[in-house]
Amino acid sequence: MADHVYKMIELVGSSTESSDAAARRAIEQAAKSIRNMRWCEVVETRAHIENQQIAHWQVKLKVGFTIEDSE
Amino acid sequence: MADHVYKMIELVGSSTESSDAAARRAIEQAAKSIRNMRWCEVVETRAHIENQQIAHWQVKLKVGFTIEDSE
Amino acid sequence: MADHVYKMIELVGSSTESSDAAARRAIEQAAKSIRNMRWCEVVETRAHIENQQIAHWQVKLKVGFTIEDSE
Amino acid sequence: MADHVYKMIELVGSSTESSDAAARRAIEQAAKSIRNMRWCEVVETRAHIENQQIAHWQVKLKVGFTIEDSE
Amino acid sequence: MADHVYKMIELVGSSTESSDAAARRAIEQAAKSIRNMRWCEVVETRAHIENQQIAHWQVKLKVGFTIEDSE
Amino acid sequence: MADHVYKMIELVGSSTESSDAAARRAIEQAAKSIRNMRWCEVVETRAHIENQQIAHWQVKLKVGFTIEDSE
Amino acid sequence: MADHVYKMIELVGSSTESSDAAARRAIEQAAKSIRNMRWCEVVETRAHIENQQIAHWQVKLKVGFTIEDSE
Amino acid sequence: MADHVYKMIELVGSSTESSDAAARRAIEQAAKSIRNMRWCEVVETRAHIENQQIAHWQVKLKVGFTIEDSE
Amino acid sequence: MADHVYKMIELVGSSTESSDAAARRAIEQAAKSIRNMRWCEVVETRAHIENQQIAHWQVKLKVGFTIEDSE
Amino acid sequence: MADHVYKMIELVGSSTESSDAAARRAIEQAAKSIRNMRWCEVVETRAHIENQQIAHWQVKLKVGFTIEDSE
Amino acid sequence: MADHVYKMIELVGSSTESSDAAARRAIEQAAKSIRNMRWCEVVETRAHIENQQIAHWQVKLKVGFTIEDSE
Amino acid sequence: MADHVYKMIELVGSSTESSDAAARRAIEQAAKSIRNMRWCEVVETRAHIENQQIAHWQVKLKVGFTIEDSE
Repeated sequence: MADHVYKMIELVGSSTESSDAAARRAIEQAAKSIRNMRWCEVVETRAHIENQQIAHWQVKLKVGFTIEDSE
Repeated sequence: MADHVYKMIELVGSSTESSDAAARRAIEQAAKSIRNMRWCEVVETRAHIENQQIAHWQVKLKVGFTIEDSE
Repeated sequence: MADHVYKMIELVGSSTESSDAAARRAIEQAAKSIRNMRWCEVVETRAHIENQQIAHWQVKLKVGFTIEDSE
Repeated sequence: MADHVYKMIELVGSSTESSDAAARRAIEQAAKSIRNMRWCEVVETRAHIENQQIAHWQVKLKVGFTIEDSE
Repeated sequence: MADHVYKMIELVGSSTESSDAAARRAIEQAAKSIRNMRWCEVVETRAHIENQQIAHWQVKLKVGFTIEDSE
Repeated sequence: MADHVYKMIELVGSSTESSDAAARRAIEQAAKSIRNMRWCEVVETRAHIENQQIAHWQVKLKVGFTIEDSE
Repeated sequence: MADHVYKMIELVGSSTESSDAAARRAIEQAAKSIRNMRWCEVVETRAHIENQQIAHWQVKLKVGFTIEDSE
Repeated sequence: MADHVYKMIELVGSSTESSDAAARRAIEQAAKSIRNMRWCEVVETRAHIENQQIAHWQVKLKVGFTIEDSE
Repeated sequence: MADHVYKMIELVGSSTESSDAAARRAIEQAAKSIRNMRWCEVVETRAHIENQQIAHWQVKLKVGFTIEDSE
Repeated sequence: MADHVYKMIELVGSSTESSDAAARRAIEQAAKSIRNMRWCEVVETRAHIENQQIAHWQVKLKVGFTIEDSE
Repeated sequence: MADHVYKMIELVGSSTESSDAAARRAIEQAAKSIRNMRWCEVVETRAHIENQQIAHWQVKLKVGFTIEDSE
Repeated sequence: MADHVYKMIELVGSSTESSDAAARRAIEQAAKSIRNMRWCEVVETRAHIENQQIAHWQVKLKVGFTIEDSE
């Protein structure tokens, strides 16, 4: 682990269900193009309101993943 | 949307169930007196502890709503 | 001035023209219902992007005004 | 307490006497129009200087109060 | 309450289930050695990613408890 | 909108004209390689000084854009 | 002084009298169990409101003390 | 006021008496070399502990004063 | 550039015209007494309100300049 | 320089040797895929502890590089 | 790892040699009384100046360690 | 110490060698014009990149020194 370099990217995931699910959705989508994700940090939690109630959560995450030499 | 002015208010909602529910409770209560709420931002999450466990969550939110001309 | 109490409110103004104009727009709208505004502080500057360019600015302000005894 | 919703407002109180007195003054003035205040948080302490000494303190507070159903 | 002194400690709880559960787990563990816990404040939410999805949540909390004279 | 995932990137734009123009320049340049930009947030405003006056503004922005499934 | 290691703890003191007295109260209570306290830093000032006025101040402090080898 | 330029300096004042007095002491000392001070902002409050109690307060201030043309 | 030491000072400039102009005004005034200014960073944007509209902008800047050996 | 646009990326470098070396390692790895890096800013310094001592440093950096037209 | 609870403590280490060494010194001292330390985070770097040069570094760290059931 | 007033100034030092050396360089240069420096606080660490590696470190410091009556 001492010789790894990680890259952080920032994502916003959305979910009508819960704030945790919004974070999971962002990771799920990122998994389509990024390999070797290791951890994430929640940096902002917002929600969109429609018809006077929370319609969906929006969670902004920083995600860290290992950069491999071929990258 | 370019010609709207929004007002932000700050609320704290409580729930014995979850932190998300505490936020939803705040919006639900605000809906009794505020129209046209658009979004909210979580600014603080705390919990009250009773009998050595989390008894209820307290979530502080900023809520944005459209100011109408008649207001 | 030593015996005044001020109230702060938070507003978001929008403008297609400039970030300064977005702040001015918020104050202009607030002037319809609030008397005795004294100063404001910019707390966030965002912009909405349409067709790959900045379509309008959104400036979040805290505005301070004197509370009068009759309020 | 678990089923309360609180609203936070932001005030600036002034006093020639002390920073604590400036906070007390803000609460005293707010008491004329707000019922059921519960707690406050100091968010900024400034002072106005006249004749080369502190002439009055200005303390910015967030104040939390219970929203009742009739509100 | 006016004559209490509280001590704050900082804990990180983990859970595969949810961010709320990670916080509850930290309080549960702390309850084994600390009496009279009163409230907690979430200061950081992170998650560990395995196999391209969130494997467990890690929530950092400050926990406040009453210091008794015998302590 | 509830099922979108956004990615945020951070850019610094420069302009001799104004701080707003520096932000517009960053978006304009980003438009050459990024589709579906939705919003931006100003995170830092600096300026370079030459001959004892502001020679150009440098505005750091976070820009959010929709990640499409093919990305 | 160059070879000391300090430990910081976080306390909340309360006082009906003043914010300074709340800080002094926390140090006084801590003195019952901690030796060699050196300095403290105010990290938060709040107050509890009863009957529409400040009933007691609550000041959160970080306190630094020398760790001795026997500890 | 619209055509003034202010300079801010940062000072730390000390007092065995109170945190307010520490701030007043800093302004008093600054008055020996700076004219036209207008306002100050408290940026940090610390205290030195001796014999297990607060021995003196240390308050860090930013002080704003008018720059005159001859300066 | 690797062997330079810079000093930062903090200024507040005012302008009835725009927030950018308030920053330019501060630099212009500073140029009367400081040589070798290199860059500035906006740290706060406020505005003074008169007659229910923004009367002048007040922009707080940190300005960096090279310290020369003779200084 | 006035007409450049920079992109910032966030990296975490590791080193068993020193915190500076951890930053250098991140830049060295980034150099394999990014051209025209100009500056970096340290945003977080952590260390991993093994066998009761610091085993390796982990330094999080924001790195700015020029975006060229062909990118 | 998902079922661990960590406790964070805050320490200040000193060293005449380097800022890294000040951090290492804090961990070394903590190792005398705390088992199972896992990571640390630098939260503040200061230095004491004597005879017009840096005499020793003071680094404030948060240190995380596993709480075991027997604790 | 209780009756001292300190002034803080902000400096940026540079070094090709290490971040600590950049801080030492700033203090060394300041020593040419400021007497009685007591402590410093690191507020920002950046580095300039040339030829795809860190060419020199730039460390921003706040430095506190005693104001003497004759100043």
